[in-house]
Amino acid sequence: MKPATTGPVPDRPDALTAQVLDSLRGEDERLRELIAGIVTHLHAFVRETRPTEAEWLRAMDFLVRTGHACTDRRNEFILLADMLGLTSAVDEVNHVGPPTMTPSSVEGPFHSPAPPRPMGAWIAEGPERARGEAAVVHGRVTDCDGRPVPGAVLDIWQADDTGLYDSQDDEQPEGNLRALLTTGDDGSYWFRTVRPSSYPVPTDGPVGELLRALGRHPMRPAHIHLRVEADGHRPLTTHLFAAGDPYLDSDAAFAVKDALVAPFRPCADAGKRARFAMEGPFLEAGFDIRLVAEGETR
Amino acid sequence: MKPATTGPVPDRPDALTAQVLDSLRGEDERLRELIAGIVTHLHAFVRETRPTEAEWLRAMDFLVRTGHACTDRRNEFILLADMLGLTSAVDEVNHVGPPTMTPSSVEGPFHSPAPPRPMGAWIAEGPERARGEAAVVHGRVTDCDGRPVPGAVLDIWQADDTGLYDSQDDEQPEGNLRALLTTGDDGSYWFRTVRPSSYPVPTDGPVGELLRALGRHPMRPAHIHLRVEADGHRPLTTHLFAAGDPYLDSDAAFAVKDALVAPFRPCADAGKRARFAMEGPFLEAGFDIRLVAEGETR
Ligand SMILES: [Cu+2]
Ligand SMILES: [Fe+3]
Ligand SMILES: [Fe+3]
Repeated sequence: MKPATTGPVPDRPDALTAQVLDSLRGEDERLRELIAGIVTHLHAFVRETRPTEAEWLRAMDFLVRTGHACTDRRNEFILLADMLGLTSAVDEVNHVGPPTMTPSSVEGPFHSPAPPRPMGAWIAEGPERARGEAAVVHGRVTDCDGRPVPGAVLDIWQADDTGLYDSQDDEQPEGNLRALLTTGDDGSYWFRTVRPSSYPVPTDGPVGELLRALGRHPMRPAHIHLRVEADGHRPLTTHLFAAGDPYLDSDAAFAVKDALVAPFRPCADAGKRARFAMEGPFLEAGFDIRLVAEGETR
Repeated sequence: MKPATTGPVPDRPDALTAQVLDSLRGEDERLRELIAGIVTHLHAFVRETRPTEAEWLRAMDFLVRTGHACTDRRNEFILLADMLGLTSAVDEVNHVGPPTMTPSSVEGPFHSPAPPRPMGAWIAEGPERARGEAAVVHGRVTDCDGRPVPGAVLDIWQADDTGLYDSQDDEQPEGNLRALLTTGDDGSYWFRTVRPSSYPVPTDGPVGELLRALGRHPMRPAHIHLRVEADGHRPLTTHLFAAGDPYLDSDAAFAVKDALVAPFRPCADAGKRARFAMEGPFLEAGFDIRLVAEGETR
């Protein structure tokens, strides 16, 4: 018996894709555009890699387990996006600017409200202060032409010498290794801290499992997070990475950019030691920040 | 101060993609291939559609909520894949064969073990039997050259006249509208049932929200699921769709294929009525099934 003929025939995969695209309606044009994009690329992925049904079910199960690993305090999907370089890709398409600007980098999951501190403050107030390598971080906030930006607020957060943020470590006081600093007339900033350590992303969930299956390490190279806001300028969220870190070439989150890497150099200069009010030996890291003025051409 | 230069520089998005691809290691070559594929296409998606950070966070939140909607009895990610045509795409790449074969179609979430029944059995044993339109479904299981396949086991499942499966409806006995039938020497099969109804996929979760935002209905056209297994032949999972269903052109799961649509025609033939042991008026649907012999060229 010959079955009847009717309707669109998705007998070839590209006809199927067209049928899905054709089904997208609704008043939200941008949503349609985004869904059309993801449908097109995921269908192309299926046609190219031809997952078996067992492989597909394994992928579905991975997504379910990733969802079940998410809590109020942990977002395993954002971690997955980080580990596939997608968070960095989204960051890049959103922060295009003049070549002289300081590039942005991903925010990561450890931001929390920081205490305002006076310029030059010690931000290491936990046990890391005695244990870690003392460091002075300093620089100037300017626009892309080098003009100082006064009144810029730097929101700074970092892990300690063992790779832990205050929120992960009962021995650190709340707000430790965090600060809000406001620049003066010359746009300069500085603070005293300990050199942060590289640290692993959480590996006890499905994403950790995937990293292991891919032979990838979970390490992020040592870094300090900075978010800088100033009137008349685009806000910037970025990292300062410590030069020489062994994971700089293989950041698990793919967030390293050339212009964000600065050395923490031992400083033996007596004048600087006095200026920074350091008592013992210390490392010095210089990191200038060039903001994009609002309205500046992308 | 000029920051140091080091390591790979993912300053352009394609460099970033290359860096992610370069990170994939591990002994599972197929996993690397699949992850490389998904990374490539998802990065291209980001570059093309340029999601804002707010859009991206909304997407992450959607995935978390989709994960949290998954339980032992509900897989919202499979539903999402169905609604984006991805399950059908995976089905298509896995079931390529001669043009004369009966095409496969997705299994869907409602399969469960069916009771063996004698050929010609009434499979509608719940309240739908009195309510619905009586129907006889019949056909032959053959190979792609039309040779009968004896001993083929058909696993059949369908919704009732209101669109509910036994597992969704306390009034239906367990195993209702399900059957295992085994073909005899001539490969033929038949059973008595009620015409199934179209039905909506679950819309009380994030996927339903997405369908509404896209102006899409959640309906699947009326169908009967069949899985056919026979020694020496590739197993086939497919649908028989009722011709004339208003949702045939817009199946929410994109599972309709031309060759799977058959009319349920009112039968007034007294000889057939006697042959099928029907007492009142009934619909007749013919659906032949052509299996691919094992080892047959794709
Ligand atoms: Cu693509
Ligand atoms: Fe961090
Ligand atoms: Fe169904």
